[in-house]
Amino acid sequence: MRCLWLEDQRPSIRDVEPPQPLPGEALVRVRVAGICSTDLELCRGYYPYRGILGHEFVGEIVDAPAAPGRVGERVVGEINAGCGRCARCASGLERHCANRSVLGIVGRDGAFAELLSLPIDNLLPVPDDIDDEAAVFAEPLAAALEIQQQLAIDPAGRVLIVGAGRLGLLIAATLALTGVATYAVVRRTRQRALLESFGVTSLGEDEVGTASFRLVIEASGAATGLALARRALEPRGTLVLKSTYAGETAVDLSSFVVDEITLVGSRCGPFAPALRLLAQGRLDPRGLIDDRLPLDDGVDGLRRAAEPGALKVLLQP
Amino acid sequence: MRCLWLEDQRPSIRDVEPPQPLPGEALVRVRVAGICSTDLELCRGYYPYRGILGHEFVGEIVDAPAAPGRVGERVVGEINAGCGRCARCASGLERHCANRSVLGIVGRDGAFAELLSLPIDNLLPVPDDIDDEAAVFAEPLAAALEIQQQLAIDPAGRVLIVGAGRLGLLIAATLALTGVATYAVVRRTRQRALLESFGVTSLGEDEVGTASFRLVIEASGAATGLALARRALEPRGTLVLKSTYAGETAVDLSSFVVDEITLVGSRCGPFAPALRLLAQGRLDPRGLIDDRLPLDDGVDGLRRAAEPGALKVLLQP
Repeated sequence: MRCLWLEDQRPSIRDVEPPQPLPGEALVRVRVAGICSTDLELCRGYYPYRGILGHEFVGEIVDAPAAPGRVGERVVGEINAGCGRCARCASGLERHCANRSVLGIVGRDGAFAELLSLPIDNLLPVPDDIDDEAAVFAEPLAAALEIQQQLAIDPAGRVLIVGAGRLGLLIAATLALTGVATYAVVRRTRQRALLESFGVTSLGEDEVGTASFRLVIEASGAATGLALARRALEPRGTLVLKSTYAGETAVDLSSFVVDEITLVGSRCGPFAPALRLLAQGRLDPRGLIDDRLPLDDGVDGLRRAAEPGALKVLLQP
Repeated sequence: MRCLWLEDQRPSIRDVEPPQPLPGEALVRVRVAGICSTDLELCRGYYPYRGILGHEFVGEIVDAPAAPGRVGERVVGEINAGCGRCARCASGLERHCANRSVLGIVGRDGAFAELLSLPIDNLLPVPDDIDDEAAVFAEPLAAALEIQQQLAIDPAGRVLIVGAGRLGLLIAATLALTGVATYAVVRRTRQRALLESFGVTSLGEDEVGTASFRLVIEASGAATGLALARRALEPRGTLVLKSTYAGETAVDLSSFVVDEITLVGSRCGPFAPALRLLAQGRLDPRGLIDDRLPLDDGVDGLRRAAEPGALKVLLQP
């Protein structure tokens, strides 16, 4: 089958053997997949990975020995697959299983391919009223909703999102749905328009007051964004880290102690509420789509997604 | 009056004019004062400060124009003095007032002197059944209790303290009182004995399992301690930063995101429960006292307190 393969930080289109589902896994034919910043970071070598890239997808179950009745289902998929045997898996923390594989990121071939394999329990049916180009956002929307699993969002408060990129926009959109007054730091006109459609107020960097927010979400992945986020925080405020950073970052930890800042790392999130919000039309992420390319043009797609200000690029096998 | 003065990172004994209490302030004759790691950091120039050092004290009110009835009271004192006019002060967050002074640390002469001045509302009477050498620990005990103001401590859980120094020991002692299984990383025999008396289990560094604690308190102030604390944390665990660090620290922030770690900065805490615990004899901090020196030997006292393994050195004006 055709796929977008990463090796030695070099992505290329290849023909490989289709994945062999393990017991309890299902084979999924990919309908459409989305390029995420993590894919770009893998290409830059921030983490070692060799295999098929991609973890945002909507597809169709084509083989499921453990649940034959599910063949034909249109699905999205939780990308973390725990070992199923350790204490963390037993307590529902499969996403933090020390031996987990992660679709297209750690030890499991990904979604930029004709076919992928995941545990059948990781696959959630997509309601008919969500089209493919909305459903493909289920994974990053779930990651956005993780913030609300970790923190109580005071709807009478204010929140600032730093970094209005492909993930930051979805975070802003989901937070605004809670009723909280939502602000995002933004430079580009298109992002401003999207934020407005989500009910989010755009701010320029110099409009962000020092110590003016009790809750700030850092979604830029840049040291400058982190510094802005820190500056915007009130004493005793909470800073959610939603981006990964290359290597080590120099942090003035004493200022976190003196101002009693809480910093919360946040990664993958719950798919079910993401699908509910999409099915109910509470938000429409399709405005983020920049481009749709055939999988064979995937290397170009990665280049496109890495351009400044680029949002979502989709690949179609 | 005699005092221990810091200027250009050089401490010396000096004669200076006694402090002039502002409206609402009281004059306190210092009975005994304690040397804290922050005093040593000020001497190393981690923060700019010029004036009288010292912020841990027990004393006696000798003049209080706003509350003459309190003259003669034996007191300890909350070291942060807010402006009393800003929104943070109005909401009870004087400790985070942007214009606060802090006794012996920021813009207010400290306790290594015959006399000091603080707002009368900062001064708490010391019950008769707490002697001076226990009462002088009220400030660091309050700082230890701040952790319990910020976090719910699960008494059925386990907590690790990294850094069994003068503050780490008090943190371990107060946490053990909650019923939580309390462990501390320790190298020295004397610290082991103190921890045992507090009901805390001592661990060598190599006895700390990777990803084995859900809650870890970093009280070493050293990058190596921070790394050990991070390593000991389970995914989704909480790391409380109780020490300040010189300059910037290189931190692998991505690991905080991937493992969804929460980091909580923690500084000064509530005095009233510290005094209650001392009055009720729930813990006895006097075993930490290394030495008692006259204030005139204060420079020597600072040197003594900076020796490896040193705990509390007291100064007597």
